[in-house]
Amino acid sequence: MSIITLTTDFGTKDHFVGSVKGTIYSELADARIVDISHQIAPFNITETAYILKNAYKGFPDGSIHIIGVDSELNEENKHIALKLDNHYFICANNGVISLLTAEIKPEKIVEINIHDRVETSFPVLDIFVKVACHIARGGTLEVIGKVISDVKKLIELQPFISSDNTSISGNIIYIDNYGNSISNISKKLFQEVGKGRNFEITANRYTFKKIYSKYSEFVDFSVPKEIRQKEGSRLALFNSANYLEIAIYRSNLNTVGGAASLLGLNYRDKLTINFI
Amino acid sequence: MSIITLTTDFGTKDHFVGSVKGTIYSELADARIVDISHQIAPFNITETAYILKNAYKGFPDGSIHIIGVDSELNEENKHIALKLDNHYFICANNGVISLLTAEIKPEKIVEINIHDRVETSFPVLDIFVKVACHIARGGTLEVIGKVISDVKKLIELQPFISSDNTSISGNIIYIDNYGNSISNISKKLFQEVGKGRNFEITANRYTFKKIYSKYSEFVDFSVPKEIRQKEGSRLALFNSANYLEIAIYRSNLNTVGGAASLLGLNYRDKLTINFI
Amino acid sequence: MSIITLTTDFGTKDHFVGSVKGTIYSELADARIVDISHQIAPFNITETAYILKNAYKGFPDGSIHIIGVDSELNEENKHIALKLDNHYFICANNGVISLLTAEIKPEKIVEINIHDRVETSFPVLDIFVKVACHIARGGTLEVIGKVISDVKKLIELQPFISSDNTSISGNIIYIDNYGNSISNISKKLFQEVGKGRNFEITANRYTFKKIYSKYSEFVDFSVPKEIRQKEGSRLALFNSANYLEIAIYRSNLNTVGGAASLLGLNYRDKLTINFI
Repeated sequence: MSIITLTTDFGTKDHFVGSVKGTIYSELADARIVDISHQIAPFNITETAYILKNAYKGFPDGSIHIIGVDSELNEENKHIALKLDNHYFICANNGVISLLTAEIKPEKIVEINIHDRVETSFPVLDIFVKVACHIARGGTLEVIGKVISDVKKLIELQPFISSDNTSISGNIIYIDNYGNSISNISKKLFQEVGKGRNFEITANRYTFKKIYSKYSEFVDFSVPKEIRQKEGSRLALFNSANYLEIAIYRSNLNTVGGAASLLGLNYRDKLTINFI
Repeated sequence: MSIITLTTDFGTKDHFVGSVKGTIYSELADARIVDISHQIAPFNITETAYILKNAYKGFPDGSIHIIGVDSELNEENKHIALKLDNHYFICANNGVISLLTAEIKPEKIVEINIHDRVETSFPVLDIFVKVACHIARGGTLEVIGKVISDVKKLIELQPFISSDNTSISGNIIYIDNYGNSISNISKKLFQEVGKGRNFEITANRYTFKKIYSKYSEFVDFSVPKEIRQKEGSRLALFNSANYLEIAIYRSNLNTVGGAASLLGLNYRDKLTINFI
Repeated sequence: MSIITLTTDFGTKDHFVGSVKGTIYSELADARIVDISHQIAPFNITETAYILKNAYKGFPDGSIHIIGVDSELNEENKHIALKLDNHYFICANNGVISLLTAEIKPEKIVEINIHDRVETSFPVLDIFVKVACHIARGGTLEVIGKVISDVKKLIELQPFISSDNTSISGNIIYIDNYGNSISNISKKLFQEVGKGRNFEITANRYTFKKIYSKYSEFVDFSVPKEIRQKEGSRLALFNSANYLEIAIYRSNLNTVGGAASLLGLNYRDKLTINFI
């Protein structure tokens, strides 16, 4: 039986997530349902895109991902289902999938057209669950929608490369649980544009000349503990999702604080890499 | 194997939820456990009642719902188990089930009497799990309790209809994840009392003359984007649970705010519908 | 199939937990994964130790517990796996397991040595999951590590007994969901040292001469409601985990407050029991 994952902005207090799971189990008694996240900021497509891109890869081929963020149907926000990288995604056509489609071409995209059969003000429950169960039972996308050729792009997620290839400008697109500020600049893009040149990263009034690959690389364990890099120092690294991240070493939002608060690097703020 | 759901005020940081799940798996290796909510405000029976009423319906017949809110046993707070609408509920007799019993008559109610066999300061773990596993194995309610005829009612959850049928007075009973303020006035009651008359809703110093059935109905998509209804505007609608809700269009508690904060419509505050 | 539990400081918003679960399902299609907690304060070993000690016992023998707190590998923070009380634990050797090893001798401990085969900046995903799946498939600890004889102790978790046996000094090691302040003094230690003597507990500027065994014991139900112990009164009790806890009767962090805030009894603060 396929796995069905849930990525929403429902929170975990209300009945929404429970309702969705109960309804899936009512249709598919042996479903395996996995929560990816329900804590996305309301209607935040960018956060959703980042979480989804990093989470889906771990799951087995054939997994079905329901994305319940900004999903109320209207004439500017249609519902789609797509197959990409051997995974299925069910969501609104609002850009939430564009971090994925930027890298991997979807095998098939359909605009869901079963709405005439269902009157609903809770589309994740009444439409997305139906589509997910249809796919889980081996149904094809064509049965629940008409094939379309492309999905909406989210401009905000695209970093900008200067025409002379000397700089990349990006934005903070995600603040993680430790308060780290994560940009839309991938390691791959950095390497393709930089081609091994020296560089300087500018973010707010801070500069960084090195990008670490692990937090612990930041610390020289041969030096006595008292004079080592301290908790609370800032660093740039490619995180485990391979995006450029500005972090505070061993940050704790309740004590030392994180990069977002300490360095003023919040959602949508700019950072630039200049190659020298 | 039946589904066992959990609705508690335990939060998700402490070991409580993990302990309960581990204990269920120790008794029933192939149990399917589903979290409905663990974020209920401590001891808040009203919130629990609202969440439970809306979540349980999605689940398959025969599901067993453990409710761990205000469940410490004392002489004024007995433990009960009941069968209602082909679902089982295990809880304290503190009114938590009264939104359900107001609409659907329980098939059977028992007062649990296995406490002499178990000494406990964690009744959800030691009593409710035992009862749930007993039911999941096909056991009857009479084996674990003595039949009683009714459950405690929660007065707070009942809206008030004026004697001349010209108004309904209700209260805010729930604030959802988007900051929407949800009342105890159902669409059914509104239609039965209103019988199609015009009306005006008064909530705090705001009035509403229309009740929408979807958030997106609020927006006229034929009008250019710049002059449409803005994010942050207020509206009244029957939500997906069919309760009258005062909402802020595309509310976000971190930016524009929600109805509870922006309109001052908090838990227990009053709202009135006058029919004209 | 064994249960695999997760106890981390990842939070539930980011993709980390989803990634870990997806990866487990990719290796073991029929795994049963249970969340114990993902809300631990970043890098907080003490909180983790307390949650883990209380949660693991409910699970069936053979369960495998992944602990993802402060787990980045470095020369001072090695990865270990151990078998103890018929359960398996996979974690960093940072003291997180020492509340358990203080009471129960591990049957076997290994230092994990599969890192040469895996390059990673996300060790829970790349190392701990691999080890957990190896154990779940029936593999032995010796295959993934070399046997060591002991684990790192966490001094902070040990209460202090005066040399004349007249007092126990402890610390607050955990604040629970209700704001209760939980100490590192167990009922067992209290009974062994106190041997039935009278006592007085001092915590901050408050004293307690009785330790309750349930919250409801605190209330005399034979007295009319109006003159009973009020919500918001303080008490000492042995909680359901059998640790000495300073609590506020029916505390609610949003209204009356909890012991941590009302009595100023926060993480690491001291409390003393003097026997008379």
